[in-house]
Amino acid sequence: MNACILAVGSEMLTPFRVDTNSLIVTERLNQIGFDVRLKAVVADHVDELRRVVEGALAWADVIVITGGLGPTEDDITRDAVAAVLGVPLDVDEAIVDRIRTRFARRGMTMPEINRRQGMVPRGAVVLENANGTAPGLWVEHGQTAIVLLPGPPREMTPMLDAVICDRLASRAGTRCLFRRVLRITGRTESDVDAAAQPVYSTWATRSVPITTTILAALGQIELHLTAAAASKAEADAALDAATAEMQAVLGVSIYSTDGRPLEAVIGDMLRERHMTIAVAESCSGGLLASRLTDVPGSSAYVERGVVCYSNTSKTELVGVPPSLIDAHGAVSEPVAKAMAEGIRGRAGTDIGIGITGIAGPDGGTPEKPVGTVAIAVVVGDTVRVRTFPFIGPRDMVKFQSAQAAMNMLRLILLKSDAPFWPSKSRD
Amino acid sequence: MNACILAVGSEMLTPFRVDTNSLIVTERLNQIGFDVRLKAVVADHVDELRRVVEGALAWADVIVITGGLGPTEDDITRDAVAAVLGVPLDVDEAIVDRIRTRFARRGMTMPEINRRQGMVPRGAVVLENANGTAPGLWVEHGQTAIVLLPGPPREMTPMLDAVICDRLASRAGTRCLFRRVLRITGRTESDVDAAAQPVYSTWATRSVPITTTILAALGQIELHLTAAAASKAEADAALDAATAEMQAVLGVSIYSTDGRPLEAVIGDMLRERHMTIAVAESCSGGLLASRLTDVPGSSAYVERGVVCYSNTSKTELVGVPPSLIDAHGAVSEPVAKAMAEGIRGRAGTDIGIGITGIAGPDGGTPEKPVGTVAIAVVVGDTVRVRTFPFIGPRDMVKFQSAQAAMNMLRLILLKSDAPFWPSKSRD
Repeated sequence: MNACILAVGSEMLTPFRVDTNSLIVTERLNQIGFDVRLKAVVADHVDELRRVVEGALAWADVIVITGGLGPTEDDITRDAVAAVLGVPLDVDEAIVDRIRTRFARRGMTMPEINRRQGMVPRGAVVLENANGTAPGLWVEHGQTAIVLLPGPPREMTPMLDAVICDRLASRAGTRCLFRRVLRITGRTESDVDAAAQPVYSTWATRSVPITTTILAALGQIELHLTAAAASKAEADAALDAATAEMQAVLGVSIYSTDGRPLEAVIGDMLRERHMTIAVAESCSGGLLASRLTDVPGSSAYVERGVVCYSNTSKTELVGVPPSLIDAHGAVSEPVAKAMAEGIRGRAGTDIGIGITGIAGPDGGTPEKPVGTVAIAVVVGDTVRVRTFPFIGPRDMVKFQSAQAAMNMLRLILLKSDAPFWPSKSRD
Repeated sequence: MNACILAVGSEMLTPFRVDTNSLIVTERLNQIGFDVRLKAVVADHVDELRRVVEGALAWADVIVITGGLGPTEDDITRDAVAAVLGVPLDVDEAIVDRIRTRFARRGMTMPEINRRQGMVPRGAVVLENANGTAPGLWVEHGQTAIVLLPGPPREMTPMLDAVICDRLASRAGTRCLFRRVLRITGRTESDVDAAAQPVYSTWATRSVPITTTILAALGQIELHLTAAAASKAEADAALDAATAEMQAVLGVSIYSTDGRPLEAVIGDMLRERHMTIAVAESCSGGLLASRLTDVPGSSAYVERGVVCYSNTSKTELVGVPPSLIDAHGAVSEPVAKAMAEGIRGRAGTDIGIGITGIAGPDGGTPEKPVGTVAIAVVVGDTVRVRTFPFIGPRDMVKFQSAQAAMNMLRLILLKSDAPFWPSKSRD
């Protein structure tokens, strides 16, 4: 079963904005067995949208159109679809009444222009919008279903789920796509692929075939497994087996198999162990603390953080002796270690982390080029310190620093001796 | 002059990946007067790509296709375009030699499969790729130019610039599009639009017409002005005048007219004034420090930051008296003020900021619901404290907290009495 997804809106044809609704629509359509073969962004122009919809009618079993259902002259999706069907637009007074009531509830009078949102191609089914004024519409043309949904994601998503459940699932194919995301850090993409390829290459021809995609960024690699199966149970069994095979070759470098980010994995580990953490950051500038506190409920284990950007603050906030900075430089393993121990001692936490490095673009030297970052993690009697040679621009050096620090902590808590990072780091 | 942009690759039809090449292609095409009317992502399938290209031939003056030029069976762009043109594919041995040399330079033998990258639809012009093995191709069909470029952005972008300069600019329209981005904080979208609409509505009919788009997120609004002009000088004059008109009605709530983020604006202000800053954060969890230190060279003015997440740390790190927390609660204006004054005193900086609030999803009370955030900014003898009622999920409360704190500082430094935020904040 083939699907086409269209996003209507000239603002998505500028250099500033991409359509992201289609990612949600793709996920949901895949789950019920539709294969997305084409997605497009179309300008706010009746004839242009009409042309694209007519083109898709030739091959698509479902066409999902988001956007262009607002009240203004620019909102042309209703008109274009009515033109495709060759039917007139009627005003549905029940819709207009609902919109009027919605405005009244907020003490406002409905502007007359909003009557446009009550216009319905004759014969269309109206899909209720619990979170906005624009209703959705369902029409059929030959064998093709056409679904019109509003553009704002918080309106679109629940309406999509409802129409999938009520109308689309029963038209869908017998094989659905189910996905799993394995997240990995501490290894390079080529290293991961060399280890993983002999494994995933055997999956494509199984009774429940699984395809694999690698997405790599600095400090984070994702393996996306997609199983085509008749049911979620069948897919889950195949994906569980595949995940286990991948864990057998990639080991603890896989930090999550359920999409959780590294800070959430760390949070769960600390909560389970009833441990608390404090961090002292220089070059990462607060990014580690900010990521740790992105996790709801992190106040249960994050006691404090300090950003000791100046040398004075390293001494005042975490007690790094000025003589240590003089002897080794602010970016050095002894200073990172003193930061980790200092913050842990002052905060009275179980864990301390210290990060000091050169984020760039300036400040590098031949011995310590931009990207050189020393990280220390202290847990109980365990003290681990490493110097990493990160690459990329300032924001990526900050990201890799936070990522490597969390991965060091994770491996210490797992009592693993896996390498922290794919680097020429000293041991 | 109308343009169509196609991205070829089934991986961009998954829920995980969007096409971003089209943003670069759009920007460059706009600059030479092409209007992008449609963009689409097409699967790796000869007949499907052929169908889409044939559809676009009916109306597009240029079709730019990225991706699908690699050496594998999945790379079908060459085949599809040859099919559209009704011409055979010939192997261009000069291309194969270049690819072979490229491999040899890295001490490798060219795999035979790479001969596919030397295949050229008869009559096509080959576009050199300085950064990869896949050459680009230029073909014409009727009045339409078709440009084939490889998918990786670092290969695609310089090839695009070359083909625009060498071939496309001369076919382009006489009116090109030039853009300017005004960034605004401290006001709601509806408030900004109410003030701005009477101004920008007069622009569309001028001799250099300017169209305006508003992009709004919580705590940040952008006005995108697009001028259609015969030259950059003409566009710049019109955009300068339009920017000045907008500044006359929106005043200091416009914090940048050149795309700089708020932290870079703050950085420039502090550098000009030779001032230093230290911040004490609770609910924002280090995000303010991290954003301030995202700016290259920020170590010149960021002295330190602390994330005092626990009450103990508020007392130990910035000297908030426990009695003050007992009397007013940790989320209160007196505590925010004590944090700002405490961090400034200990750091010896010119400026101190204190942020304390409830990021959610838990921790709210009827008097202090989730999103309640008290922020204090201390500069010289000036002390400003406000309580903000932010909305949205945890990450957006953190973002708005950092944004509002920087905007308070900006307005104090500008000696402006403009409101800090569109809120029922106490004065």
